[in-house]
Amino acid sequence: MHKAHWMGTLALSALVLAVNAVYADGSKNAESQYQSAASPLAGEEMHQNINPKAPPMTEKEFVAAKEIYFQRCAGCHGVLRKGATGKPLTPDKTLANGTDYLKVFIKYGSPAGMPNWGTSGELTDAQVDLMARYVQQEPPTPPEYGMKEMEANWKVIVPPAQRPKKKENNLNLENLFSVTLRDAGQIALIDGDSKQIVNVIKTGYAVHISRMSASGRYLYVIGRDARINLIDLWMAKPDTVAEIKVGLEARSVETSKYKGYEDKYAVAGTYWPPQYVIMEGDTMKPLKIVSTRGLTVDPQEYHPEPRVASIVASHYHPEFVINAKETGKISMVDYSDLNNLKTTTIDAARFLHDGGFDSTGRYFLVAANASNKVAVVDTKDDKLAALVEVGKTPHPGRGANFVDPQFGPVWATGHLGDESISLIGTDPVQHKDQAWKVVRSLKGQGGGSLFIKTHPKSKNLWVDTPLNPEAKVSQSVAVYDIGHLDKGYTMLPIGEWSGLGEGAKRIVQPEYNKAGDEVWFSVWSAKDKQSAIVVVDDKTRTLKAVIKDSKLITPTGKFNVYNTQHDVY
Amino acid sequence: MHKAHWMGTLALSALVLAVNAVYADGSKNAESQYQSAASPLAGEEMHQNINPKAPPMTEKEFVAAKEIYFQRCAGCHGVLRKGATGKPLTPDKTLANGTDYLKVFIKYGSPAGMPNWGTSGELTDAQVDLMARYVQQEPPTPPEYGMKEMEANWKVIVPPAQRPKKKENNLNLENLFSVTLRDAGQIALIDGDSKQIVNVIKTGYAVHISRMSASGRYLYVIGRDARINLIDLWMAKPDTVAEIKVGLEARSVETSKYKGYEDKYAVAGTYWPPQYVIMEGDTMKPLKIVSTRGLTVDPQEYHPEPRVASIVASHYHPEFVINAKETGKISMVDYSDLNNLKTTTIDAARFLHDGGFDSTGRYFLVAANASNKVAVVDTKDDKLAALVEVGKTPHPGRGANFVDPQFGPVWATGHLGDESISLIGTDPVQHKDQAWKVVRSLKGQGGGSLFIKTHPKSKNLWVDTPLNPEAKVSQSVAVYDIGHLDKGYTMLPIGEWSGLGEGAKRIVQPEYNKAGDEVWFSVWSAKDKQSAIVVVDDKTRTLKAVIKDSKLITPTGKFNVYNTQHDVY
Repeated sequence: MHKAHWMGTLALSALVLAVNAVYADGSKNAESQYQSAASPLAGEEMHQNINPKAPPMTEKEFVAAKEIYFQRCAGCHGVLRKGATGKPLTPDKTLANGTDYLKVFIKYGSPAGMPNWGTSGELTDAQVDLMARYVQQEPPTPPEYGMKEMEANWKVIVPPAQRPKKKENNLNLENLFSVTLRDAGQIALIDGDSKQIVNVIKTGYAVHISRMSASGRYLYVIGRDARINLIDLWMAKPDTVAEIKVGLEARSVETSKYKGYEDKYAVAGTYWPPQYVIMEGDTMKPLKIVSTRGLTVDPQEYHPEPRVASIVASHYHPEFVINAKETGKISMVDYSDLNNLKTTTIDAARFLHDGGFDSTGRYFLVAANASNKVAVVDTKDDKLAALVEVGKTPHPGRGANFVDPQFGPVWATGHLGDESISLIGTDPVQHKDQAWKVVRSLKGQGGGSLFIKTHPKSKNLWVDTPLNPEAKVSQSVAVYDIGHLDKGYTMLPIGEWSGLGEGAKRIVQPEYNKAGDEVWFSVWSAKDKQSAIVVVDDKTRTLKAVIKDSKLITPTGKFNVYNTQHDVY
Repeated sequence: MHKAHWMGTLALSALVLAVNAVYADGSKNAESQYQSAASPLAGEEMHQNINPKAPPMTEKEFVAAKEIYFQRCAGCHGVLRKGATGKPLTPDKTLANGTDYLKVFIKYGSPAGMPNWGTSGELTDAQVDLMARYVQQEPPTPPEYGMKEMEANWKVIVPPAQRPKKKENNLNLENLFSVTLRDAGQIALIDGDSKQIVNVIKTGYAVHISRMSASGRYLYVIGRDARINLIDLWMAKPDTVAEIKVGLEARSVETSKYKGYEDKYAVAGTYWPPQYVIMEGDTMKPLKIVSTRGLTVDPQEYHPEPRVASIVASHYHPEFVINAKETGKISMVDYSDLNNLKTTTIDAARFLHDGGFDSTGRYFLVAANASNKVAVVDTKDDKLAALVEVGKTPHPGRGANFVDPQFGPVWATGHLGDESISLIGTDPVQHKDQAWKVVRSLKGQGGGSLFIKTHPKSKNLWVDTPLNPEAKVSQSVAVYDIGHLDKGYTMLPIGEWSGLGEGAKRIVQPEYNKAGDEVWFSVWSAKDKQSAIVVVDDKTRTLKAVIKDSKLITPTGKFNVYNTQHDVY
């Protein structure tokens, strides 16, 4: 099972590499956005510090290696090389390994998950040698990014006073989908009723998530390059009204949803610098930046790079729930008074990743993937309710809420590292004995799952496996009958249904329409190949529609406006 | 006035240097303690990083320079050289200055406050050259100090079960004084009634403060080397029952005082690493470490070294009030649930230093010395009540509370940077127009003041000026009649009264006995010269006693048990 997990990651790496290779000679749009994200790393604060114990390298080599490291290595090993999904690569480790050992690892990879950068053709032998020497140097620290930098990279394109006073289009906004076009650095807005593309909007690179303001008017999308677009859905043709770049690398954005604070604030968390920023909701004017640097939960030792993973907005208090990956701490940040900022910091486990609410909206369940745990936060009492042991490397997305016929209300997660699906009891009142325990573990079609989904009106539970190394598995989804979970899953060949023919593709992220009678799947091909969105009729589990368009480049995450706005999942 | 301030600092530097010079060939006790503080800086994480743009230096030179920097420079310029009282010394600044320019500054000092390390004889020309080159290199980051290090440096000498069940001595504990013997690395416990030394206890180097547990049983003292002694005053001869070293450099310790939490927790703040640790009250077992690294109040930019200055315990909530110097942020840390840690972070101003409560215990007033402001925190509502403009570089110690005959209740501070004493109205109910304003500015005997004091039963206000460059001023104190503040001060020649004769000495820190009818002053000589404590009759302002003892080496801070326990000042 351990191997399966890493093989999944390895396979994804290969796909990402393929995509990178494509856009090295592809779209200038995406590339220039990505370059703009990477360029601060070449700034003057990043000059070379030669470690006399390490093999020598020139300043030019150092700069080149630094860039390769940021592109290829930082995601898993961390900018400061402290390790996360990948192992630590600090000089105390790498100097002991030595250049030859490191070269073998970089070139050939390892069964434990290190990609084969050399034999895959991604790095030349000279680059492998370069990187083996580079990782024996002290990691250069990327520049900080504070209020000055945010203000310099903030732009209000349409000021609030000049925006529509009422909705100026005939769209059924509640059934609109915001779809990440990953490698194009865009999102597509797709009308869920007609399945037509409403607009394609230039955004940051590889938009990680879309989030709605409480009112449902404003859509926020954040790229991995930490660029956020604020999109006004009331415009005749919904488009960007404000933009900001909040750091060098990011994953999460959210909006204030507590009564009295609807549409008032947005918050974004960054991987680098490790911090979050609270912004005005309708302009994204940056107001308050808070660092996440601090001590890990256990052992209590300082970590310089606690990246901000998922963020959700509390329904019980004027608070954001902010998850710091490397420290394993969950901060409940009260936004009612930014100058006297109240925060409750909950000790959970490492490394925090993604999660969602239970069906009542009171409890937030978040994966601590390296600990094989799910942390349960009580957002009413602002404390940890439980740490639940699950399968290997849980990856819930936001998870799935439904009523298990035997055990009552549950929240479910799939796993990257094994084929199981863990169902956790979420009702401490009516089903006290089941609460915060894995009440059932389903056997899935394989490891490498990223997302699981159902809908209050559905009897189906959908589980994707896009990172499974077997094409047959990664190109299908598993669906369970919630009424008969013991009967196992049915495998639906979504890839085949897309009609795209041969070629690498992955089926990723089930997303319901507002009515809960359709499930949308991304068929994610390489950037130079055609992709598609396959729409399945939920009741009959049959193909309903295939959305194909030359503009639909590498679609991944899809966010239905109503379901996102109301945390329906 | 600006000059006066820095001259004061300069003069203190000279005294400190003299003291250092002494103990280079003096007490092994103090020296070994100090070495133990400094030695982690020579650890393997501190190896050399040669900046190719900087003048070359050998690894041996680097190590030697690093040690000199920690001893001589870090206090003002910061371990990471970001600047605080002294200017920033990061390579972006120093490389532009160049070696020759830097050598002149280091050797001759500057009127802006840089000590003349060369011409004072402290550094040789070769060392001046070494330091000029060293500060052009990247500042090496000292090692972190987390739970593992704290536990390894924690010792319970007498476990709670083996301690006295009741007081086993005949001392009048409420009138006991804990007196820092700065350069001896000791404290003296002095019986306030008999003026006899009860015990001299080996502690950390240069104990910065003494604090009492809520019950008055336990005394905590913290050295600059971050070593804390927990002393049980119930023992037949009060002595250390537990010890811990919580970091590399520190200034502050406090205990929980809120109802229900008496004697339960202690907290210590460190300069390096920039963090605080909450400990069990009766054993100092470290429980929870929290970093203060984060963004400054204005501009919002990341600071890697926000040193913890003063800490006090709230009377209104189970909270510690923790002041982070370089960020200008005040954290109200709720200790009622350490695993779900509630904190309110109040934006104040830079650089936060020392402070105390108003007479009601509700408001905490703290100097933001580089901003020439006093921040007022409402510890009931946990928010900033005001930022008050005062004189240049306020240094209140804990300040002084009394009733101004014209303006009602005030809290007063002296200043390092000018001769004024600022009286701030503290009664927003009965004297609303005066609240959080400087209602009166008294003319003092000169700049370089560290401490100001009165007592609820006294009509006198005492102001020391130990850092004033003029011996006549630094060896005297000013006393005002609170009933007639407009009449100015009377200068009392405490140094002369000590009968110590010629030689550098400074009069520092007035401290009342419990009854409020005696004021104690330290007469702080160089380490190889005799020092003394002069006791003045408060009512008659005449000499009452001189405490002299060969064991009283460099006495500085004195803390009366009752007044410290109950925040009487």
